[in-house]
Amino acid sequence: MAPTRSELSWSGWGDPAQAGPLSEEVHALLRDALGITHANPAPASLDQVQLEPVRLDAEIAAALRQLVGQSGSDHEMRARHALGRSTPDLLALRAGTPLPAPDLVLMPGSHEEVLAVLDLCQARRVAVVPFGGGTSVVGGLRPAAAAFAGAIALDLRRLDRLRRVDVESRLAYVGPGLRGPDAEALLNERGYTIGHFPQSFEYATLGGFAAARSSGQASAGYGRFDELVVGLRVATPSGTLELGRAPRSAAGPDLRQLILGSEGAFGVITDLTVQVRPVPAVRRYDGWRFDSFASGGAALRRLVQDGPRATVLRLSDEAETALGLARPERLGSGGDGGCLAIVGFEGTAADVRDRRDAAETVLRAAGATPVPEAGPDWEHGRFRGPYLRDALLDAGALAETLETACFWSGLPGLYRAVGDALRESLTAQGTPPVILCHISHVYAAGASLYFTVACAQREDPIAQWRAAKAAAMTAIQAAGGSISHHHGVGRDHAPWLAGEIGELGVAILSAIKREIDPAGVLNPGILVPS
Amino acid sequence: MAPTRSELSWSGWGDPAQAGPLSEEVHALLRDALGITHANPAPASLDQVQLEPVRLDAEIAAALRQLVGQSGSDHEMRARHALGRSTPDLLALRAGTPLPAPDLVLMPGSHEEVLAVLDLCQARRVAVVPFGGGTSVVGGLRPAAAAFAGAIALDLRRLDRLRRVDVESRLAYVGPGLRGPDAEALLNERGYTIGHFPQSFEYATLGGFAAARSSGQASAGYGRFDELVVGLRVATPSGTLELGRAPRSAAGPDLRQLILGSEGAFGVITDLTVQVRPVPAVRRYDGWRFDSFASGGAALRRLVQDGPRATVLRLSDEAETALGLARPERLGSGGDGGCLAIVGFEGTAADVRDRRDAAETVLRAAGATPVPEAGPDWEHGRFRGPYLRDALLDAGALAETLETACFWSGLPGLYRAVGDALRESLTAQGTPPVILCHISHVYAAGASLYFTVACAQREDPIAQWRAAKAAAMTAIQAAGGSISHHHGVGRDHAPWLAGEIGELGVAILSAIKREIDPAGVLNPGILVPS
Repeated sequence: MAPTRSELSWSGWGDPAQAGPLSEEVHALLRDALGITHANPAPASLDQVQLEPVRLDAEIAAALRQLVGQSGSDHEMRARHALGRSTPDLLALRAGTPLPAPDLVLMPGSHEEVLAVLDLCQARRVAVVPFGGGTSVVGGLRPAAAAFAGAIALDLRRLDRLRRVDVESRLAYVGPGLRGPDAEALLNERGYTIGHFPQSFEYATLGGFAAARSSGQASAGYGRFDELVVGLRVATPSGTLELGRAPRSAAGPDLRQLILGSEGAFGVITDLTVQVRPVPAVRRYDGWRFDSFASGGAALRRLVQDGPRATVLRLSDEAETALGLARPERLGSGGDGGCLAIVGFEGTAADVRDRRDAAETVLRAAGATPVPEAGPDWEHGRFRGPYLRDALLDAGALAETLETACFWSGLPGLYRAVGDALRESLTAQGTPPVILCHISHVYAAGASLYFTVACAQREDPIAQWRAAKAAAMTAIQAAGGSISHHHGVGRDHAPWLAGEIGELGVAILSAIKREIDPAGVLNPGILVPS
Repeated sequence: MAPTRSELSWSGWGDPAQAGPLSEEVHALLRDALGITHANPAPASLDQVQLEPVRLDAEIAAALRQLVGQSGSDHEMRARHALGRSTPDLLALRAGTPLPAPDLVLMPGSHEEVLAVLDLCQARRVAVVPFGGGTSVVGGLRPAAAAFAGAIALDLRRLDRLRRVDVESRLAYVGPGLRGPDAEALLNERGYTIGHFPQSFEYATLGGFAAARSSGQASAGYGRFDELVVGLRVATPSGTLELGRAPRSAAGPDLRQLILGSEGAFGVITDLTVQVRPVPAVRRYDGWRFDSFASGGAALRRLVQDGPRATVLRLSDEAETALGLARPERLGSGGDGGCLAIVGFEGTAADVRDRRDAAETVLRAAGATPVPEAGPDWEHGRFRGPYLRDALLDAGALAETLETACFWSGLPGLYRAVGDALRESLTAQGTPPVILCHISHVYAAGASLYFTVACAQREDPIAQWRAAKAAAMTAIQAAGGSISHHHGVGRDHAPWLAGEIGELGVAILSAIKREIDPAGVLNPGILVPS
């Protein structure tokens, strides 16, 4: 049974009942490899945590509450809408120092209510943070609200309907507040799936997937979330945008692609139309071992370029394989040499059989050998990574992930550059890290790299990580990679956006922002300079 | 041997040597079905045609010429850059009345030369029309230049290099001035193809494909051109945009999707990075007959949603099948009942065999029967449509095409609405038309409809067509379709853009335009109000 919202961890990931302790092997690893000698004090409790004082004028707050069917501003409500789920955010939540929480949480029940809220916020200069699952890992829920009369969270949980399934066009008309499992449950009943399963699947929402350009573990088969969205309804301070009259169009630039990735800075997504597919009859995930990251990468490239089309394609590097992170249930048990790939197929029984057989031929020809049980192990642990991070933080480690992408020819250079930058920065800070990596998403032209870093915490772990992350970002840009493949920009990556799209690119985004949101109240500081 | 530029028809399509006369069957059809009794006078010759006088100040012209390696302003050069290839454009070219031609044609040899030209044009308020193949069918080459100091065409023919093939990432770095066949020849030598074959393939350019969101006849297999572009370099009056560090990214909105479809109004594409694939060993195109447009459409939908993946998927309606337009070599020969589909596969021999066999099972189960020779006939005539139009105009007919797209569930309604609107408008004008249609591009969620209309010409055929087209556009929007699936907006569709993306959508495009091109010199009147 899924936990209710009030049962969720307020300062960590998801369901506290799911957060198991680390094994003795992992404790030994932390002690021996990272030199961690003592655990951290327990996180502040929800009751104890201090919040920054409410700044919003009571009269404005009352007027805003009048506009929506449901709202809240008690201590718990405010605390549960403070910050996201990056490691710096978690460290801040744990620290017990006063948190920048929204003054008020509004839960609109309709597009029209969202429009009314934006109208009033614009008039009274109140910052508005659209809130889905609250799982941003790039500072997307940390607005630069100082110049505003206050900040509210617009929690979209009540916009959670499956309005319609267009069976012929295989489209679902869904609300942005639906969490992954709830959306799948509603669709599965009717025989359909979206097929979008990022690590945040259990808690993040469809609106968040769209606003942050999320990509799921089955992206090789189903596509990224931004590829699955064909229609959007967006409430903005300047009115409504309704986009998507056909799967594809030549009616000028594709404005859907401006809203996808806009992270709440251009508007609030109040309805989505997404491509759905029949629930697959069969799902098979297999583990394959390669001698090296290079040979495994070449095999994944071969599969995505020439087929057969796989649904899941992932490849851990030697370090990640050795530590067993691709199989969280066996973390630290070691014993896996080489590089572990997960190759999965979903579809009809015949289709899965044919594609799986064809892939086996390709994989064996590339030198891969099967790893029994690795596939089911991966499937069992596929959403557990964030729990692991909480446990590592408890144990006194600093643990975080970051990701990037580039074209295939640049991938080895990008891999080396990011690893080196992280290692150098953290070693220079006196905390030599363990650095793990996997190829998490593949395309004909390139792939993404997903890094996991762990080391001992220094006195100021937030500053410690910020320095390492900055070194990694600089290395990513020098190596030609993208600053994010699927996490987004938020505030954390905003300083590097000009390196990605140029000063002119940023100026274009700012011009769009000024046009849509002249008062700048939408998620200020996120994506574009406020 | 491909004709040189000066050998091309200046007032019609492509190579005059390819433009055959209409058969006696077609003449009979025009006479009996459309009541056309006399041919039109021959088009004006290049020598005779009048051009509007040059307005550009000689000193500015000289300064502009200084900036680029090659330029021209003689009568032929100007006339060959006047207007595009819509039927209204062709009628204007034929009419012999003074044409709005550019004052000067510049042929820059580098990105830097383009930047310098834009700089000077911005400073002196000279309108700039980026010019690729000159094949726009939506008025993309008819700038609203009256408020400017003159207008120049920026002919990108010299930006025609294949700079590099990234074999590992299967990417080609190409110049925007490359025409379809030249790009394919350069790539084929190295074993690759782009796989983009629109009807304009022989004369349009890669930059034009990108700027207008072109879609080719093999889009089911290779994707639309906008899906094949992963990188862009763009010269603008505000500097350079370089976009695309990875196949996909979450670094905010995808700005590539703002340039794709911008039709020269936001900047000049000076380099593209496009996905390429190995040249297929085997190409097989088969004809299949369905009882009805509905049953054929359902079968195409079944194929694109559940596979096997075809490379070409098209379906003519009853009228188009009866007239034989899907087999232009046999036009007017009649005899084909039902609805003809073309189902094509490209790839390795084994892959084509497997997919073709699997498709045959699906098609036969859907009631289709093979039509021998229809596939090769289609292949032979696949680029001949525009020549046919010239011959019909010669013969006294008004002939034009238009296209739209929507989701599958809306397709029957859209099909009826557009046909009815065209028939009513032209019948009311005293010229009952023949209306043909085919499904030209398919997606999991929907498809495009491509209409061909022919009727007798009235005294003012441009006004006659404008009225019919306006009726069709209104019907498209009322039925929920897109104003263009692959032709673009230009000036012809600009009045309906707000109906597609809303007033706010247009305001966003205008804001982007102001930011990039504050003097508004880039293709004024195209896409956004000038």
